[in-house]
Amino acid sequence: MAEKRKICFVITSKIHYGRSKKILRAIQDDPNLELQIIVGASAILSNYGDVLDSLERDGFPCHAKITMTLEGGSPVAMAKTTGIGITEFATAFDNLQPDVVVVRGDRYEVLSAAVAAAYLNITVAHIEGGDITGTIDESVRHAITKMSHVHFATNSDSHDRIVRMGERPEYVFNVGCPGLEFIAEHDHVVSPDLINYLGVGEAINLDEPYLMVMQHPVTTEVGQNRQHVEETLHAIHELGMPTIWFWPNVDAGTDEVSKAIRVFREKENPNHIRFLKYLPAEDFIGLLKGTACLIGNSSAGIKETSYLGVPVVNVGTRQQGRMRAPNVIDTDYSRQEIISAVRKQMENGPYETSTIYYKPGTSKNITDHLRDIPLYTQKRFYE
Amino acid sequence: MAEKRKICFVITSKIHYGRSKKILRAIQDDPNLELQIIVGASAILSNYGDVLDSLERDGFPCHAKITMTLEGGSPVAMAKTTGIGITEFATAFDNLQPDVVVVRGDRYEVLSAAVAAAYLNITVAHIEGGDITGTIDESVRHAITKMSHVHFATNSDSHDRIVRMGERPEYVFNVGCPGLEFIAEHDHVVSPDLINYLGVGEAINLDEPYLMVMQHPVTTEVGQNRQHVEETLHAIHELGMPTIWFWPNVDAGTDEVSKAIRVFREKENPNHIRFLKYLPAEDFIGLLKGTACLIGNSSAGIKETSYLGVPVVNVGTRQQGRMRAPNVIDTDYSRQEIISAVRKQMENGPYETSTIYYKPGTSKNITDHLRDIPLYTQKRFYE
Amino acid sequence: MAEKRKICFVITSKIHYGRSKKILRAIQDDPNLELQIIVGASAILSNYGDVLDSLERDGFPCHAKITMTLEGGSPVAMAKTTGIGITEFATAFDNLQPDVVVVRGDRYEVLSAAVAAAYLNITVAHIEGGDITGTIDESVRHAITKMSHVHFATNSDSHDRIVRMGERPEYVFNVGCPGLEFIAEHDHVVSPDLINYLGVGEAINLDEPYLMVMQHPVTTEVGQNRQHVEETLHAIHELGMPTIWFWPNVDAGTDEVSKAIRVFREKENPNHIRFLKYLPAEDFIGLLKGTACLIGNSSAGIKETSYLGVPVVNVGTRQQGRMRAPNVIDTDYSRQEIISAVRKQMENGPYETSTIYYKPGTSKNITDHLRDIPLYTQKRFYE
Amino acid sequence: MAEKRKICFVITSKIHYGRSKKILRAIQDDPNLELQIIVGASAILSNYGDVLDSLERDGFPCHAKITMTLEGGSPVAMAKTTGIGITEFATAFDNLQPDVVVVRGDRYEVLSAAVAAAYLNITVAHIEGGDITGTIDESVRHAITKMSHVHFATNSDSHDRIVRMGERPEYVFNVGCPGLEFIAEHDHVVSPDLINYLGVGEAINLDEPYLMVMQHPVTTEVGQNRQHVEETLHAIHELGMPTIWFWPNVDAGTDEVSKAIRVFREKENPNHIRFLKYLPAEDFIGLLKGTACLIGNSSAGIKETSYLGVPVVNVGTRQQGRMRAPNVIDTDYSRQEIISAVRKQMENGPYETSTIYYKPGTSKNITDHLRDIPLYTQKRFYE
Repeated sequence: MAEKRKICFVITSKIHYGRSKKILRAIQDDPNLELQIIVGASAILSNYGDVLDSLERDGFPCHAKITMTLEGGSPVAMAKTTGIGITEFATAFDNLQPDVVVVRGDRYEVLSAAVAAAYLNITVAHIEGGDITGTIDESVRHAITKMSHVHFATNSDSHDRIVRMGERPEYVFNVGCPGLEFIAEHDHVVSPDLINYLGVGEAINLDEPYLMVMQHPVTTEVGQNRQHVEETLHAIHELGMPTIWFWPNVDAGTDEVSKAIRVFREKENPNHIRFLKYLPAEDFIGLLKGTACLIGNSSAGIKETSYLGVPVVNVGTRQQGRMRAPNVIDTDYSRQEIISAVRKQMENGPYETSTIYYKPGTSKNITDHLRDIPLYTQKRFYE
Repeated sequence: MAEKRKICFVITSKIHYGRSKKILRAIQDDPNLELQIIVGASAILSNYGDVLDSLERDGFPCHAKITMTLEGGSPVAMAKTTGIGITEFATAFDNLQPDVVVVRGDRYEVLSAAVAAAYLNITVAHIEGGDITGTIDESVRHAITKMSHVHFATNSDSHDRIVRMGERPEYVFNVGCPGLEFIAEHDHVVSPDLINYLGVGEAINLDEPYLMVMQHPVTTEVGQNRQHVEETLHAIHELGMPTIWFWPNVDAGTDEVSKAIRVFREKENPNHIRFLKYLPAEDFIGLLKGTACLIGNSSAGIKETSYLGVPVVNVGTRQQGRMRAPNVIDTDYSRQEIISAVRKQMENGPYETSTIYYKPGTSKNITDHLRDIPLYTQKRFYE
Repeated sequence: MAEKRKICFVITSKIHYGRSKKILRAIQDDPNLELQIIVGASAILSNYGDVLDSLERDGFPCHAKITMTLEGGSPVAMAKTTGIGITEFATAFDNLQPDVVVVRGDRYEVLSAAVAAAYLNITVAHIEGGDITGTIDESVRHAITKMSHVHFATNSDSHDRIVRMGERPEYVFNVGCPGLEFIAEHDHVVSPDLINYLGVGEAINLDEPYLMVMQHPVTTEVGQNRQHVEETLHAIHELGMPTIWFWPNVDAGTDEVSKAIRVFREKENPNHIRFLKYLPAEDFIGLLKGTACLIGNSSAGIKETSYLGVPVVNVGTRQQGRMRAPNVIDTDYSRQEIISAVRKQMENGPYETSTIYYKPGTSKNITDHLRDIPLYTQKRFYE
Repeated sequence: MAEKRKICFVITSKIHYGRSKKILRAIQDDPNLELQIIVGASAILSNYGDVLDSLERDGFPCHAKITMTLEGGSPVAMAKTTGIGITEFATAFDNLQPDVVVVRGDRYEVLSAAVAAAYLNITVAHIEGGDITGTIDESVRHAITKMSHVHFATNSDSHDRIVRMGERPEYVFNVGCPGLEFIAEHDHVVSPDLINYLGVGEAINLDEPYLMVMQHPVTTEVGQNRQHVEETLHAIHELGMPTIWFWPNVDAGTDEVSKAIRVFREKENPNHIRFLKYLPAEDFIGLLKGTACLIGNSSAGIKETSYLGVPVVNVGTRQQGRMRAPNVIDTDYSRQEIISAVRKQMENGPYETSTIYYKPGTSKNITDHLRDIPLYTQKRFYE
């Protein structure tokens, strides 16, 4: 009997974990595959939600945990975290000897894992390559593509772009977005009690129309992030609706964003806004489904909401270039523009479901390819 | 008066230094530019030649030196060196605050520098992108391209490939290969005494037709490198001509190659081969001009020799895909094939000069662009 | 003329900077010494106060800045920060080539610098060795002593302990505590406006008797720190006096302490407590002089207050073993004990000045020794 | 039933492994203990012998392997290796969660492991502390002692020194040297064929009186190591006896020593010397028993030989201060002194067995203590 193919899944954020559970389960259930899991970066920083408990509860193994994130929320911290990540992932892969390493997205920890695996002559499979956005993620995403061997794009544009970059077409698949498959199959309703238990701020009423805000720092705009988020803060304050605001991720500039929020809270004491660090994936989707409008610059405002038809006000440059459905209104960093756009979205109400990022069977297709494709390590620009 | 634009040149090998001197001088002499130099990796390992003395002798500054290479000649050592390099370059760039970081080639230390600079929102200029080869360098080279903002390709094919990968055409220049400009302007004759002073082995006679060998490890063939180089060793031994053999670089697999050479020396005591670690750039070119045939898998066997018309036997996969002039015969890892190919090249003698990698004014053009192009940091896939 | 002796001063926290300014000035003003300064760790994390601006304002150079602190406030984060610190300091020292590296205290970044310097065969001078305390600092402090060559103890007990550990007596000096010399020579009055401008919480009245709290995590009690600090929080809340509370340092357990404070603020909304991250050294001393009682486990509660005669309630194990003056009442982690002790101290009022940690001329003596002692690098256990 | 106490043994060199096998077996066989093994540093560099094969052959597990050694044989490489080691050991300990980490000796990788474990609040047991020697090891050894909680000294002087440094007497044990217990229980005869199969150089005759040389670099004499070892090379060459010469370890200065040897071999072609990288522990002891004289500065020349009565010429400062038996003659770095001393030792012949470093039951005693002592983590200087 042939040996099982060892698939090592790298999880570096709690959100990533929530969206990947179905793939993890499919790999775990496949008799020809052996699932290895490495958890690192913000996935094990309690500030940003800890994945280890979830793994245990969900019956998944954890083969290695890696503490690697430098404090500071600065470009230099982000660069060094990437470097530390490579040395750590190299040790982990060297000890686990997987056949395939699966990474997802465009963050620096993901680049770390891809570089380490590629140097160790391990086949790298990359989910969600080929998109176009702002911030350093734009460079990192394509660099990961060039270090990877198998590509699971989430939409047709990205598929074509990956091929254009010189990847072998027979190793580039448009499987749709795992996060949307997750949404399509869940019908979870979030409990107001949970929301009002988590986070800080006054309790808010989810029976009224409520807003959600997710505004992350833009690494290429370090120094301006505080001012940019203040525009959104003032807009939301003026709108005065119940609002659930998520703290920013750890990218360079995060300290600017956090400081803006903290100072705003101290000064304005905005009792209609509740600030959350993290929600489990199911609850997040439940909350998202019910929101009157999502404001900010999260990819969820482009991808997840396209399928849900949730109205979105996308602020600034972070998602520039990503393919989008009609549910998105783009604005500059301007409180007036944001207020107008939110009001317009409130009048419009929910949109039709779009399937630009959705394909049924995403997790099964990924797992089938991981099991069946011939593996290779020596890359060659495809012309 | 405007401030000088600070150009930080990263030197990570002694060969790289030799080929870049003309650019360094042009930057240094430009009143609108300030030259910063960082020296690291094998450039400061005495085993592989130390650049610090050369810099001082040539009147160049050294703003930072960085020890970063892990021992072991293994894939895991290479991966970790990349990680250490990022953290070190991040500190250096953070302290030096350059406007542009200039890197060259496709080695892992170069990826380190490019990643660190990109995260710090510094414009990255990359020399020699877009080529196609074997080994992990193939992945790394294109990943560097995707982290870089300004591209100095050495040939038209590479220029076009870089654009195809989504880089902005107005920031991609085909300037020719700096190494060939260096050759075209030097008329240095190497002294047999120098060759017989350096390295180990018996003295050899450079008045007779002599061979040169440069065979580096192939990182994606770790475990087979020893056997591969043994084929070349036996071929050269059977040919019996005076031969100058260069030790391999530090890539994964270097220990395999070194061991093959050491064991071969102990067993066969081949008195017609002299083993060298390094030659200054001028002497190397002098030697190369005079050789009857260059054997191995060095890029010099594709690029430098194309212009010089030196006959080359290129062995194995390392240079697969690189544009080549008629002077190259490709062989497999086979002593018989190598012997036949060398004999064929001996009969043929020198070839015509090819200019596929050569353009006059390479260094001046690079320097002009570094001074005049508008700098940017936020990348966007060009479609 | 002899070359100047290069003295490299390592600054890893803002508090450390404030207390060292007089030594820095003395070195800078000495015609036989050349001052080098490296700033790293929490000294360049804006969360914990940034030293770079202060250096510039005070006319000191900064030869290198080093970002090195891992996020997480966990034991593993602290260990890794130590490791990263060594590699970074090694590069910095290798580039700066100092004759003596001066470090101070017992934190992990200080161990990093001492280890790096010792391996580079640079003489290490250590300020404040030989004390006894709790937490991992107890181990680290003595390990630094064993890596160091010149010792500036702050009190006679510590002097004797250093000698007993095998250090050469002619290289161990009791010079008193630099922080107390700073106090003795300053007569700064803190402005209530500054206090009420900085930090978060309601404005407080400094004309009334006020308390100060500085309670840092204890690394060897990770998991219990939250509960421990909650006792203090409740004690202070019950006492109800105007209080200035300083955020904890970044040691392992810091997240527990921060969380306890944040949750307490959300729940209790204690309007008599103002929370500060940092105060400039002069203002800190001004504030300390005026407080009715200092509560917590900071070394300032043992050393600085001994000279000032400020009443102190020292909580828990962190300062266990340090020589103390009569101004300190020790308590367990118990709100009742803390409340009783504070009330007792309020009744007692200020104490007499003690000089157990004070000697006049500390900075001058340190500088004189740094200039005049014969340097050595090969250590030998003194018996 | 109580849980097993998890004992994590750190192996960082092949020699260390050979000498520790009996302890490893005793731990493995103890029903109340669980053995964890981490292999790193030169123990997994093939140049210096790979322990992984031996572990498998001997039936021991390997829970993690760690590549961490920087190339260069320089002080800065040694410092950085220490730093990298801490970050790597921290991850490994964090994943393995041992109750006790056992380290041995005084090399930098050992400091790495001790620092990482101490920060993670794991009890550290240290074998072979308290000795006095030259090089940076002298500082490192005592720093490890101050980071450790349980001490297994190999002799009474060292025991007393550890207590004097402030360690709790009930946690300091003089158990003798594990290497000597190993010797006392083995009666292995080395095969001349093995010696002449391994290494490089001409075959030598072990039936004649033969010499052994082990001369490592002295880190605090970087820059002079080449000259120092040349004295020994010339002495041995002049003596002209069959000699087995071991390559130096990777400490700073190793490149100087290697280069001296390589150049000497090229120039003098000394056909009576065979150069070996490594011998398995049993064969090494067999060889050592039979030698007419051991020359150099290895600790084996002080400890192992004291029991075997083998004549030793100890050269230079590296072992200065170590307690020694009558079998050692000390010399300076002087070929004349070395020649005279070897001749004197040849005349004298074998010495009486000394037990200054020997106690029966070393491994059993260590294992018993590891199982039975109450563990603690918070240290306190013992007075």
